[in-house]
Amino acid sequence: MINKRLEKLRQKMSNSNLDAIIIPSTDPHQSEYVAKYWKVREYFTGFTGSAGVLIVKQNESALWTDSRYFLQFEDECGDYNINLHKQSIPHAPEHVQWLCDSLEENAVIGLDFLQFSKAQLDYIKGIATPKQLLLKNVPNLIDTIWTDRPELPSFSVNLHPLEYSGESTASKIEKVQNKIIHAKANYYLFSSLDEIAWLFNIRSQDVDFTPLVTAYAIVGLEKTILYCNRNRFSAHAIESFLKLNIEIVDYHLAIPELGKLDANKKIIADVSSLNYAVYSAVKSQFIIQNSIAKTLKTIKNNTEIQGSKNCMIKDGVALTKFFIWLEKELETKAISEFEIGKKLESFRKEQALYMGESFAAIVGYKGNGAVIHYTASQNSAALVKNEDILLVDSGAQYQDGTTDITRTVWLGGTPNTALKTAYTAVLKGYIELEQLQFPKGTVGMQMDAFARVHLWKHGLDYPHGTGHGIGSFGMVHEPAQGFTTNPATSSGSSAHSAHQLTTIEPGCYKKDVYGIRIENVVLSVPIKQTEFGDFLGFKPMTLFPIDRQLINTSLLLESEKEWFNTYHKMVFEQLSSFLDTDEKAWLEDKCKTLE
Amino acid sequence: MINKRLEKLRQKMSNSNLDAIIIPSTDPHQSEYVAKYWKVREYFTGFTGSAGVLIVKQNESALWTDSRYFLQFEDECGDYNINLHKQSIPHAPEHVQWLCDSLEENAVIGLDFLQFSKAQLDYIKGIATPKQLLLKNVPNLIDTIWTDRPELPSFSVNLHPLEYSGESTASKIEKVQNKIIHAKANYYLFSSLDEIAWLFNIRSQDVDFTPLVTAYAIVGLEKTILYCNRNRFSAHAIESFLKLNIEIVDYHLAIPELGKLDANKKIIADVSSLNYAVYSAVKSQFIIQNSIAKTLKTIKNNTEIQGSKNCMIKDGVALTKFFIWLEKELETKAISEFEIGKKLESFRKEQALYMGESFAAIVGYKGNGAVIHYTASQNSAALVKNEDILLVDSGAQYQDGTTDITRTVWLGGTPNTALKTAYTAVLKGYIELEQLQFPKGTVGMQMDAFARVHLWKHGLDYPHGTGHGIGSFGMVHEPAQGFTTNPATSSGSSAHSAHQLTTIEPGCYKKDVYGIRIENVVLSVPIKQTEFGDFLGFKPMTLFPIDRQLINTSLLLESEKEWFNTYHKMVFEQLSSFLDTDEKAWLEDKCKTLE
Repeated sequence: MINKRLEKLRQKMSNSNLDAIIIPSTDPHQSEYVAKYWKVREYFTGFTGSAGVLIVKQNESALWTDSRYFLQFEDECGDYNINLHKQSIPHAPEHVQWLCDSLEENAVIGLDFLQFSKAQLDYIKGIATPKQLLLKNVPNLIDTIWTDRPELPSFSVNLHPLEYSGESTASKIEKVQNKIIHAKANYYLFSSLDEIAWLFNIRSQDVDFTPLVTAYAIVGLEKTILYCNRNRFSAHAIESFLKLNIEIVDYHLAIPELGKLDANKKIIADVSSLNYAVYSAVKSQFIIQNSIAKTLKTIKNNTEIQGSKNCMIKDGVALTKFFIWLEKELETKAISEFEIGKKLESFRKEQALYMGESFAAIVGYKGNGAVIHYTASQNSAALVKNEDILLVDSGAQYQDGTTDITRTVWLGGTPNTALKTAYTAVLKGYIELEQLQFPKGTVGMQMDAFARVHLWKHGLDYPHGTGHGIGSFGMVHEPAQGFTTNPATSSGSSAHSAHQLTTIEPGCYKKDVYGIRIENVVLSVPIKQTEFGDFLGFKPMTLFPIDRQLINTSLLLESEKEWFNTYHKMVFEQLSSFLDTDEKAWLEDKCKTLE
Repeated sequence: MINKRLEKLRQKMSNSNLDAIIIPSTDPHQSEYVAKYWKVREYFTGFTGSAGVLIVKQNESALWTDSRYFLQFEDECGDYNINLHKQSIPHAPEHVQWLCDSLEENAVIGLDFLQFSKAQLDYIKGIATPKQLLLKNVPNLIDTIWTDRPELPSFSVNLHPLEYSGESTASKIEKVQNKIIHAKANYYLFSSLDEIAWLFNIRSQDVDFTPLVTAYAIVGLEKTILYCNRNRFSAHAIESFLKLNIEIVDYHLAIPELGKLDANKKIIADVSSLNYAVYSAVKSQFIIQNSIAKTLKTIKNNTEIQGSKNCMIKDGVALTKFFIWLEKELETKAISEFEIGKKLESFRKEQALYMGESFAAIVGYKGNGAVIHYTASQNSAALVKNEDILLVDSGAQYQDGTTDITRTVWLGGTPNTALKTAYTAVLKGYIELEQLQFPKGTVGMQMDAFARVHLWKHGLDYPHGTGHGIGSFGMVHEPAQGFTTNPATSSGSSAHSAHQLTTIEPGCYKKDVYGIRIENVVLSVPIKQTEFGDFLGFKPMTLFPIDRQLINTSLLLESEKEWFNTYHKMVFEQLSSFLDTDEKAWLEDKCKTLE
């Protein structure tokens, strides 16, 4: 089937005189997760990973993705004639150089400009132009092949109430307008779905795991237009937006209408996310800035922080019930990773304001835990028994916040020394980074290694970043701040500020043997101001005991034991009043003092 | 005088229809320190700092420099009508946006293309083009104003013998040729003076403190041409180069001859250093790569490492004699910082193979130590007495290596608690980074904060990077690896490898009160190989006791005391056989066990 689709595509390419086509995994809003309508790359490859770029030429198909997905690629695409190119850095644009090198001069490359940001297209041009390669926009090439292409999402759009957002749309729009005035511009254009959801306090379910709404928006000083299908809004919503001078105009009118804006006007936009179809349609002058919404959104207000605290209690309660269930079940039988994931979801569903999972839960037994983005399928999931190691990475969307937690637990038997050393080093790394006190403005790449240094001492490491921003009933991977070794990413290069929510999640993975990861969400808080800077620290938000069976306590400093005991005292205090007597006793045991 | 020069420049600009001119501090080789001939910015401002860009418009002159030079700017330029723009990041190109914003459309900006790299000019074009600003090459505009401009350097060029370089020119050229073959290219073009000095094993004195030779070089598969004035070489040198198929051609012929290369040929070059005058003259096709010489040069061979060890002993002996002299003199009188610097130089001069200072020594008493690039002048230097704190940062060029060391010493009286806390935190930071074990490929920005974390705990910090590569009878600040908070610099983004020499130099500075810095050169060494990577560590090369009067030992961990005692045991063992009885006794006391 895949081969047939590729064949049809090649036929089309041939008719359109294209020597190659680049098909990325994103949508017109540069989203990480996309609506079904935009899963073009999946349609032509069968590959379902969230990151990966397909290049089709007449004589070759090739897909670039990173180490998280190598095994998945073999599973899903091993039977087709598609070559895997292994990226060492996720999203690195190595395929561009490869493609340009492989083509003859004057060859033509097709791309749907909607799926490429202005910044990405500039990059491709920079490599293609010296070789006189032509870039051709092919907006509708796919439609005649993909005849059963899904519709664009049309779910109803909900207003995210002030009791959870903590700031009115009017107040947010005013901040944008002040920025417009300050920059002597006329408009501010937004195309990132998470920024639009934040700015207009709207939520829907266009994208799996993330409550986003497919839209563009342009804020002016007099009037704001939200380009999103009108029939998705209640009359009440349309009316209340109108009172704020916000007009709702159908999504497909965005590009034609933006193209009619006066050439003398000035538009602020972030070209890292603005797609090239919009960019090239607009005749007004662009002022290129990092999006104000992206920056403001990372700083959580008091309502959002309180919402997160509430979610963490709900998540902790659900996990307590889940792990009690798991321990008990395993006493008498084996359970598949898939079933375990479903059961975990069911405990979260019982919690107030639950809206869904925030990503596909990872339940990885023994060696499966070493597959970093492992998803157990119903058919191939391993059977978990009351022995060895299990990694559970999961999270939820609640109307008052988003969660993301990883715990690694020992299920029975005697762990070997090397495993305990690795687990203890991961824990020490978590503590080291969480306890760091640092000046405001410090970026993720400067802090990432604090979570690694104890692993490095033993010749260990992990092949992923150490953490990411997290939204408030928003994206579970929210730009901008985070911790990573890669300076080209926003989580490597963004300054940390007070009141941000970020994950800390060091790990260690031994192929076919084990996966270890410990992950909490932390809140950045002001510590002190001195002549040398405003110093910040982190406070753990996530509330659930960290398994102690794999700790080699002789490797812990007194200060680390103190951190461990303080954390578990807090976990018990925060959760216990929401538990019944048996659950409370179970939790008390898991939170007892570590000597 | 400066005002008159600027007036003449404006007259010239007016005649040439220039609305603005950008005058950087560099030369055609993007050197950090430049020959007098290239001190154009100094000529028009009086400002002698090593970093700073001047922009002259008809109605304004403005200079951009970083915090190292704010006080120096006030001293040197306070009387002239030049506005200081304070850069938070050294060398950041903020002036370009400022200039383009301040000019009307279609305005003309003059620049001498020789002084701008291809990468820099592209950056300026990117900002200037949307506003239809024109960039105009003005190669000889200055000459008619600066009538007594110095000549280009004409010192004789010395061959750097194999006993110090450890690798023949033939071997180095062969590595370059292999790279040419691998890239299917025809030539490799070099324009960085330190790379050329390394590649051809040549040294001279064109530039203060750095033994470089003004030249370009192009390596081909048959023949190599070194563009450098022939009369600077001995007949013997010319002949020995000819035997290696290296022809020496006068410097001023470089651009005309390179311009005659066939358009079908392919030339590898590093456009971060290649100037735009050369780039635009060449008709052949460029293959853009990071310079192979820059990369190879950072990896020291056994001869260079042995040379460095020898230098460190010589430097340690000189510093021992110097500090004994200083202690004794201060018992009876006060001595100026300037005199102290001269005396230190005199002790180094007594050492074998001494070739000069590797930078202008910093001798900063009390608050002067807080001026990070402080230079005491004969007239204004402070008088040092046997009390309070003194910072001494100095280094030397020896034929077998380059040194750079900072020590901060307490001269008498009772230090307060806050000062001891800061000093101890700096020492702990040095130890933390030097003891780090990390996978090969880790970049400076990931490691820099390990030297800061103990300061951060007390709300302290320092406003500079933590270290830089160092040459082998070469540049004291050698690209590429180092430690810094800035991802845009080579020392932030370059991977560390085994056998590199790098400084570690955390500090702490309180304006008008004190400057603390502790700096050693360290060698990166392989520690172990595991499935997670090749792990490296550092070994201290610098040999001189660290003052212990300012240490609050209660803040040191046992492991830190152990490091301290092991280091001082090594210092004593390495230096003592080169000292007389009194000197040995003095050093023994400074190296005794810390309890």
